[in-house]
Amino acid sequence: MPAADAQVVATLMAEADLRGSDGHGVIRLPQYLKRIRAGGVNLHPDIRVVKERAAMALVHGDNGMGHLVMKRAAEIAIEKARTAGVAWVGAQWSNHAGPASLYARMMLAHDMLGLYFAVGNANHLPPWGGLEMLLSTNPIAAAIPALEEPPIVLDMATTVAAYGKVKAKAARGEMMPEGWMIDREGKPLTDPKRAGEGFLLPIGGYKGYGLALVVGILAGTLNGAAMGRAVIDFNQDAQTPTNTGQAIVAIDPSAFGEVAQFKAAVDKLIRDLRASERMPGVERILMPGEQSHEKSVRQRKEGIAIAAQLVQTLDRLAEQLDIPPLRTN
Amino acid sequence: MPAADAQVVATLMAEADLRGSDGHGVIRLPQYLKRIRAGGVNLHPDIRVVKERAAMALVHGDNGMGHLVMKRAAEIAIEKARTAGVAWVGAQWSNHAGPASLYARMMLAHDMLGLYFAVGNANHLPPWGGLEMLLSTNPIAAAIPALEEPPIVLDMATTVAAYGKVKAKAARGEMMPEGWMIDREGKPLTDPKRAGEGFLLPIGGYKGYGLALVVGILAGTLNGAAMGRAVIDFNQDAQTPTNTGQAIVAIDPSAFGEVAQFKAAVDKLIRDLRASERMPGVERILMPGEQSHEKSVRQRKEGIAIAAQLVQTLDRLAEQLDIPPLRTN
Repeated sequence: MPAADAQVVATLMAEADLRGSDGHGVIRLPQYLKRIRAGGVNLHPDIRVVKERAAMALVHGDNGMGHLVMKRAAEIAIEKARTAGVAWVGAQWSNHAGPASLYARMMLAHDMLGLYFAVGNANHLPPWGGLEMLLSTNPIAAAIPALEEPPIVLDMATTVAAYGKVKAKAARGEMMPEGWMIDREGKPLTDPKRAGEGFLLPIGGYKGYGLALVVGILAGTLNGAAMGRAVIDFNQDAQTPTNTGQAIVAIDPSAFGEVAQFKAAVDKLIRDLRASERMPGVERILMPGEQSHEKSVRQRKEGIAIAAQLVQTLDRLAEQLDIPPLRTN
Repeated sequence: MPAADAQVVATLMAEADLRGSDGHGVIRLPQYLKRIRAGGVNLHPDIRVVKERAAMALVHGDNGMGHLVMKRAAEIAIEKARTAGVAWVGAQWSNHAGPASLYARMMLAHDMLGLYFAVGNANHLPPWGGLEMLLSTNPIAAAIPALEEPPIVLDMATTVAAYGKVKAKAARGEMMPEGWMIDREGKPLTDPKRAGEGFLLPIGGYKGYGLALVVGILAGTLNGAAMGRAVIDFNQDAQTPTNTGQAIVAIDPSAFGEVAQFKAAVDKLIRDLRASERMPGVERILMPGEQSHEKSVRQRKEGIAIAAQLVQTLDRLAEQLDIPPLRTN
């Protein structure tokens, strides 16, 4: 793909790892490459606005890398929110774009709040009481600027565990806690090697099912993107365009009042929560995104930790592609 | 309060009961009356827009009944979304407004999608790992129009159980299932009579804590409304203005494409989910809002069922207020 595009994607992938979203960072490179080689991604997409009003746009991703599509979508949302106060930008014909928080976070540098919704790229969730996996882990992210405190950044799948966590347990030979998955009889499934025989559980039972459905409609159906049975499992199929749908919302707090006053109120809230009485044995009360923030500060200094096995995989790919391997020592 | 306002509030309360949200309908009348008598509600509020841009408004509720404030907010959101495509309206100095779905639903008659966020009127949730109840059950509602199918309407607290359900269990002398509440040691609390010694659990553990926090900031902090320690417990304090914050979003699907096409896609999704394979013993796969829809159809014909005890309470209030009692037979 054009060097400038490659740089955007690489920077966002590295940022995902930097902030601790390592399940959605450089670890995805082999999968992206497989799809690129199979012709499943358009390397020269014409990413364009196909619908537009004062507070919304619909972006056609032309089957380009999701990172390129959603970066553009976020920029449009920020620009529109500056005048309209709030802006909602949907994407169709996009692709996997890494962690949800990456895009919600883009608003923070502009003193705005960001929300992000996406349709996941493989269905792992049946409707409540069902056996057919018609829904994905459709994530929600929210980023809220604070004054002196690090921002509040929520990034969550609507399932108790993201599928990547199940894979990680399997890789480490560990069992899963009850509540992550159930089998086809509805009984707890705790062996991650049997994950193929069961389903992820939505958070709060039927509530999480409803949330996954609504997020999928907002990010997928509303944008004319894939949802439900139309979702392409990108683990199984590297060729068919996924028509991934995502949505991003920018909210300008200056439309609601004094920005500094809002950010100070967020600081106060954070400090009240953090300093509040803890349960026995609990060392810290954390804000959403606080651990990720600390990891990013540490890794920015010390470098980003990558598992040895992943380095090997990446170096093997580099060799195949005749590019220099990572400098490992 | 002025007759026209009383009629708006009464209609919305009856609609809550009609649709099965009976924990937020006419059952709240004694509490509303207590607050009105204590001077805690402004019966002649000047509900007004204090901030405005193309796609947003901030409504000052002037401590009026929440129903009046949020009906106005929804109307503004619909009007703005018609031109801007999407509109977000926040409220400050509002009050308890009944079930979240009531307002998200208002968009349906205009072929729009509705979202609603609110700060609950009593804190029942500590931060994850904490003991001080600094957060409420901050609900989320979403309403999505379909073509031939009933709309999808999600209405959920960000806790596993709403506090009203705990009260209902206590009233019926039943135990709660594990997972609804924990005690101060973090152990399951199943006796609803001991509810005062414990806390509600957020959905998905720390995820629901994050969700409750983000919803509270969007509906409360952003609007300059109460959040965290500033939330007034309206069970304990009938006088202090609650400065309740709520937010409503209207999304016009005609800005994204053909409305009929969108609604047909929602129909297809509903039918795919409903007809999909079921777990042994499961009779139906339900959509969010489907049971509520069926209840409303039935109750519109047969009348709204009200518990005998509630009728007695209402009749006692009617007597005190020197107005005719309900016609019961």
